[in-house]
Amino acid sequence: MIQEERYSSLEKKIAGLKRLKPRLHGHDFLLTWEKSDDDLMTVLEVAGVLREMRAANISPRVFDSGLAISNFRDNSTRTRFSFASASNLLGLAVQDLDEEKSQIAHGETVRETANMISFMSDFIGIRDDMFLGEGNRYMREVGDALDEGFDKGVLPVRPGIVNLQCDMDHPTQSMADLMHLLSVYGSPGALKGKKLVMSWAYSPSYGKPLSVPQGIIALMSRFGMNIELAYPEGYSLIPEIVEMAGRNAAESGGSFCVSHSMEESMKDADIVYPKSWAPFHIMQQRTELLKKADRQGLKELEQVCLANNAKFRDWEFDDEKLKLTKDGSALYMHCLPADISGVSCERGEVSADAFEQYRIETYREAGFKPYIIAAMMLTNRFEDPGAILEDIMRRDHRRVGIS
Amino acid sequence: MIQEERYSSLEKKIAGLKRLKPRLHGHDFLLTWEKSDDDLMTVLEVAGVLREMRAANISPRVFDSGLAISNFRDNSTRTRFSFASASNLLGLAVQDLDEEKSQIAHGETVRETANMISFMSDFIGIRDDMFLGEGNRYMREVGDALDEGFDKGVLPVRPGIVNLQCDMDHPTQSMADLMHLLSVYGSPGALKGKKLVMSWAYSPSYGKPLSVPQGIIALMSRFGMNIELAYPEGYSLIPEIVEMAGRNAAESGGSFCVSHSMEESMKDADIVYPKSWAPFHIMQQRTELLKKADRQGLKELEQVCLANNAKFRDWEFDDEKLKLTKDGSALYMHCLPADISGVSCERGEVSADAFEQYRIETYREAGFKPYIIAAMMLTNRFEDPGAILEDIMRRDHRRVGIS
Amino acid sequence: MIQEERYSSLEKKIAGLKRLKPRLHGHDFLLTWEKSDDDLMTVLEVAGVLREMRAANISPRVFDSGLAISNFRDNSTRTRFSFASASNLLGLAVQDLDEEKSQIAHGETVRETANMISFMSDFIGIRDDMFLGEGNRYMREVGDALDEGFDKGVLPVRPGIVNLQCDMDHPTQSMADLMHLLSVYGSPGALKGKKLVMSWAYSPSYGKPLSVPQGIIALMSRFGMNIELAYPEGYSLIPEIVEMAGRNAAESGGSFCVSHSMEESMKDADIVYPKSWAPFHIMQQRTELLKKADRQGLKELEQVCLANNAKFRDWEFDDEKLKLTKDGSALYMHCLPADISGVSCERGEVSADAFEQYRIETYREAGFKPYIIAAMMLTNRFEDPGAILEDIMRRDHRRVGIS
Repeated sequence: MIQEERYSSLEKKIAGLKRLKPRLHGHDFLLTWEKSDDDLMTVLEVAGVLREMRAANISPRVFDSGLAISNFRDNSTRTRFSFASASNLLGLAVQDLDEEKSQIAHGETVRETANMISFMSDFIGIRDDMFLGEGNRYMREVGDALDEGFDKGVLPVRPGIVNLQCDMDHPTQSMADLMHLLSVYGSPGALKGKKLVMSWAYSPSYGKPLSVPQGIIALMSRFGMNIELAYPEGYSLIPEIVEMAGRNAAESGGSFCVSHSMEESMKDADIVYPKSWAPFHIMQQRTELLKKADRQGLKELEQVCLANNAKFRDWEFDDEKLKLTKDGSALYMHCLPADISGVSCERGEVSADAFEQYRIETYREAGFKPYIIAAMMLTNRFEDPGAILEDIMRRDHRRVGIS
Repeated sequence: MIQEERYSSLEKKIAGLKRLKPRLHGHDFLLTWEKSDDDLMTVLEVAGVLREMRAANISPRVFDSGLAISNFRDNSTRTRFSFASASNLLGLAVQDLDEEKSQIAHGETVRETANMISFMSDFIGIRDDMFLGEGNRYMREVGDALDEGFDKGVLPVRPGIVNLQCDMDHPTQSMADLMHLLSVYGSPGALKGKKLVMSWAYSPSYGKPLSVPQGIIALMSRFGMNIELAYPEGYSLIPEIVEMAGRNAAESGGSFCVSHSMEESMKDADIVYPKSWAPFHIMQQRTELLKKADRQGLKELEQVCLANNAKFRDWEFDDEKLKLTKDGSALYMHCLPADISGVSCERGEVSADAFEQYRIETYREAGFKPYIIAAMMLTNRFEDPGAILEDIMRRDHRRVGIS
Repeated sequence: MIQEERYSSLEKKIAGLKRLKPRLHGHDFLLTWEKSDDDLMTVLEVAGVLREMRAANISPRVFDSGLAISNFRDNSTRTRFSFASASNLLGLAVQDLDEEKSQIAHGETVRETANMISFMSDFIGIRDDMFLGEGNRYMREVGDALDEGFDKGVLPVRPGIVNLQCDMDHPTQSMADLMHLLSVYGSPGALKGKKLVMSWAYSPSYGKPLSVPQGIIALMSRFGMNIELAYPEGYSLIPEIVEMAGRNAAESGGSFCVSHSMEESMKDADIVYPKSWAPFHIMQQRTELLKKADRQGLKELEQVCLANNAKFRDWEFDDEKLKLTKDGSALYMHCLPADISGVSCERGEVSADAFEQYRIETYREAGFKPYIIAAMMLTNRFEDPGAILEDIMRRDHRRVGIS
């Protein structure tokens, strides 16, 4: 009975999908702001369908074989596992491209390697978030190499690239966050007029990427929300992205402002996202020093930066700040792991009490990411995502058990 | 013809399974002594059926997708491959959770990580055998986190945990060893009255876990065998587990005793398991020093321990000791790798001559482990293992070739 | 329509296969010179069929489960990915046997480990190319251990071994190179009389294995080509393999000669393969020093060797040398990565201009390797490769999408 309801709900959702006009087929997912509203809604809807299918024990496996390359140029647990989960759900085997396992560090060009790993690959997931101006550029370089390889008959298919975090955006994170918001508020329409505060928060570490806050303000500003970006003076983000968020907000009937008081920003907030990041100008200097492999310079920059951070130890999200939000109960969001005061560090982004109230919510938030990635893959590879989802329903293969 | 006989033998075994009343569905396999006799017999029978199915080229794949997380907090080849083999046989992809690949070492809580890796996971295999009082506790901590995640709707299924060796037990080893004994002696009834000697043996290394000898005496004492635990004075195991083995033996109609002479213990033995381990009190001190990261203390403890070991270099299983056993031909067992005198070390647990006579037997012994793990997974996930095995027979999918 | 043509072309090729009488079933692929002409043609034809099937979205998956063990005792990107791709195409999951993940380095014998990793393995791919006289021997040692394990009932199947590069041969490379030549020239008959120059080239590194040039001259000399092996005096290969190439050439109606001038050798060449390697006698000394772990000796040898290399910096393949070849447009080949002057090093094996003209060709060349490996696996496991390929056609399962 429940199963039958589920099937009809799934069929309705798939039918809804068919009204959208995405241009996702054959296109890499590198930045949300390169994607149309229909693109975003398609990914969200497909992710929702895949999630429901799996819950109903319907296997959406659409690859009988094929590799998904996992190229992490920085550490990661949750995104790595999300990528592995998404790949596996669709039938792809993950193959890690690790520098310690490969010869890549020894003078091979990106161009060559991109082709060498792609003879039987369907997707390449890349995380490259360390250097400002580099990560996204690297992904496009890989993409150009794959285009060339495909055009010249080297590659039988053009593998799709999924941006698993770069210096500019973290689209699988921001889209999972948006999916979480839709699960809480019900529909994109319901987001209109909501106040979302993307706030800097104190952390005892330095060099945290800018891509999460940038991704959040760039994406959420497209849904008529009132976005407030709060940070201590000096902790600004890439200016072009901030400007874009302002334009987005204006166009979607929302608003966008920058403030320099965490407390002020929290007032009447519906949604808060307190998270640390490094200042834009520090990241610029850091990138230069990293390029020059200037260890002494990096050490000094870290000291300067940590000393500067320490001035803003009161930028911690705690119960007092929570009280300032709408009805004292804004939705708290975080990409995890959070620096939790007294838990993962002496003092950090959020107090233990405040975090604990939302801990399970942040787990749920994270749980959308594998489905977002799977949806990005499916819509990249299948021209008509609705049709393939219908085929999956018709086939009705169980994920667990004997069909 | 052979194939037909195999099918009818398989059908008979599956029918036999249906008489057992296990409580394995939805329960982690952490310690054999938490499991009923029917639980153990069910795992053994399912393992036997899976083994025969694979030999008959019938694929018992019951997952179309899904991850099995491999979390090894200590090195391992054979158990790692056994876990990978079992997962693959059932259709799951292995995803390693390695500390060097993840952020786990950097302040994430177990609770959070357990959920983050489990959104599409069906099983987590954990080896954590280094610290007394820690490994099994860690597994339960992970289990609690998974329970919470599942109860609160974070996880679509509660992944099962398979203990791949902890500080207390090594259930996939002891169950594989028991399966080996059953393959040699024919039935649990045939084990009654057999003398099994679990003996300490000399090794030039220190800090070997206690979980194998503990697992062996705790499990084998349930089948009416006469168990003798032999070790030099001072090399005792966790007292509670030794006491339990005594109670088990009494209840099952066997006996249990401790002795301090390898030679004496070997007399009339049917089965001998000579293997090195560190003394309980040394492991307690070592755990404290490891917690404090006291390198100097650890170095000194190692010296003391090795010097102590050296007093017992004659605790080597050799042809002389073999002659003392029943008809001079007891079954020699080892979890591998053994410290073989003149092969892997100057002097070790077993002489090269004695080992060579049983080398192939020890390989066979090890070969049961992947099936034991697969059976633990299958019985955790399917309420009626007999029914799913029947479904697999009915489907009759080939493992190799075109069905 | 295109699809229909493809099907009939595939059916014709499979029918052609049936005329060959290979002895590949159950035999490891360790050296091309142990294989008959029918063996080689079978592998090439099967590789071609698998490639066309995949392009036509027909999945040649013949394993429902099973492991392919990847044992790289040296770094590698392209061969590692080729092995992973081939395994995945046929339905096998790759399991890495890495020394840092295992206990292999700590006194385990090859014999034992080979069995321990093989209870559910179908193939073991091994790269071991560092020590002269060691790599191929190691593979045979593993093979003997697997034979024993299978004969004595430890292993349910005897896993096949694929040589992914040893000290003597690099058969997956040379066979992929041959497949490339056949795709350029059309048929083995068309290779007759072609001049192929396997030339040493300058590199600022030392210790490059001999297996690629050895594999090339040993294999290509079997097809009636005129092979010229060019190197500076002192840079000879393993003498027995050079002699064999001479005999092969004589028997196949071609010729074989050694020269010591890159320029002279290039005259009228149809195909050129300029690639660096270490001199045979240096590799012998290096092997001795590595065995003794003589760091100082190794350092000194490296200095001597690099100084010697530097005398031959003009052994660079450039546009001038290209002009000397047949119509100034010989086919340039390389196993990649090449040392490209001004790109991956100051001065290397090939000038940037010359390489760029053939860059895409070398990518295509590399793209045959996964199919060669898959064909080696398929012909090892299935007695009648034509029949199983027909079964795959009949089943007509899509690789991507819903069948």
